[in-house]
Amino acid sequence: MFLDKPESHIMLALDTPNRKRSFEVLDETYDLIDAVKFNYPLILKEGLEIIREIKERYKLKVVADFKVADVPVTNNRIIELVKEVGVDVVMVHGFIGSDALLELKDIASNEIGIIIVTELTHPGGLEFTRNYSEKFAELCAFVDVYGIQAPGTRPDQVKKLREIVGPDKVIVSCGVGAQGGSFADAVDAGADFAIIGRAIYDAPSPREAVINFRKVKVEQ
Amino acid sequence: MFLDKPESHIMLALDTPNRKRSFEVLDETYDLIDAVKFNYPLILKEGLEIIREIKERYKLKVVADFKVADVPVTNNRIIELVKEVGVDVVMVHGFIGSDALLELKDIASNEIGIIIVTELTHPGGLEFTRNYSEKFAELCAFVDVYGIQAPGTRPDQVKKLREIVGPDKVIVSCGVGAQGGSFADAVDAGADFAIIGRAIYDAPSPREAVINFRKVKVEQ
Repeated sequence: MFLDKPESHIMLALDTPNRKRSFEVLDETYDLIDAVKFNYPLILKEGLEIIREIKERYKLKVVADFKVADVPVTNNRIIELVKEVGVDVVMVHGFIGSDALLELKDIASNEIGIIIVTELTHPGGLEFTRNYSEKFAELCAFVDVYGIQAPGTRPDQVKKLREIVGPDKVIVSCGVGAQGGSFADAVDAGADFAIIGRAIYDAPSPREAVINFRKVKVEQ
Repeated sequence: MFLDKPESHIMLALDTPNRKRSFEVLDETYDLIDAVKFNYPLILKEGLEIIREIKERYKLKVVADFKVADVPVTNNRIIELVKEVGVDVVMVHGFIGSDALLELKDIASNEIGIIIVTELTHPGGLEFTRNYSEKFAELCAFVDVYGIQAPGTRPDQVKKLREIVGPDKVIVSCGVGAQGGSFADAVDAGADFAIIGRAIYDAPSPREAVINFRKVKVEQ
């Protein structure tokens, strides 16, 4: 499928300040993680091609966490562009609506997996997105896309959303590490991948940080 | 302020396929429009610096319609990056919540205006975003940011949202032209700027298209 069967359960959020630091962190960690996730800040700074380069150099699955949130004509163009650089999975907001999701699914075809963001992990995520997170999980099942992003900061919610999407959809959990979510809790609650960023790339030794996250899981 | 007092009421959505076409369209239209709006597809293709280049060459106000929709740490980095290339106004989704908006306002300080997207203009926008559009307009007034984006495809809604934000906030209306919204209706309903894209850049003569939009307004 779009992502490999999780081995370490770690999806590295590569929110590094620049190209140089990105490669330093990956040189240390690439063989111990399952996938790399990119967000706009690094891409705006270094260009979209860095995704292709990293995918080819480290043979890792790559995720564009672009939280696509626009009208179909724009969403569709974004998906076409990320497809071109080899992105395996793209994250989109559920509130773009069923029609927009169906169009995206069509354009993604079997080349790229779509993950629907259910709710934002910070406190303000409870103000609006939380009210629809279960609806978005239903949409994942109904439109039949690849999976959902669920809040690693709220393991009970991950569990609830897993029940809605069923066992076959992929769940990635953001907010693990610096945002306060526990790696073990997220995975135990039903997440296939825990997204970890600062707790790895800002650690004195990113490699040791990854090893420690893996141990936590193994020792359970 | 961040945008000049509207003269033509036209904000060009520069959703052109590449750099070359962007400059062709602007060469024809720059003296007849009020501002240029950029979205991710062009930026992902050509890089963020194209915004600075266009701002300097055409002496136009520039808007980053990035529909920012993430957790604060990411939103804040995006705003820092667009500030660096001289962006005057950035568009963000209201559903990131009050806390995230307050942080953004702080980072934007007086250098960049924040416009809150109230609802998406396509049919799917009615499925989720519409349920909160009035709430988002209230947030604009409450957090006291620069303005809102309101749906040019739904002039009644523009009128309602104008009542909520009051006369001093800026309203930009998307969906005018190819998406079916009428330019005159949007402006009459209270929009300061109508965002027009395909109806200009895909026209046989973009300049004539702009002239025709301006006439519509003048002839009223």
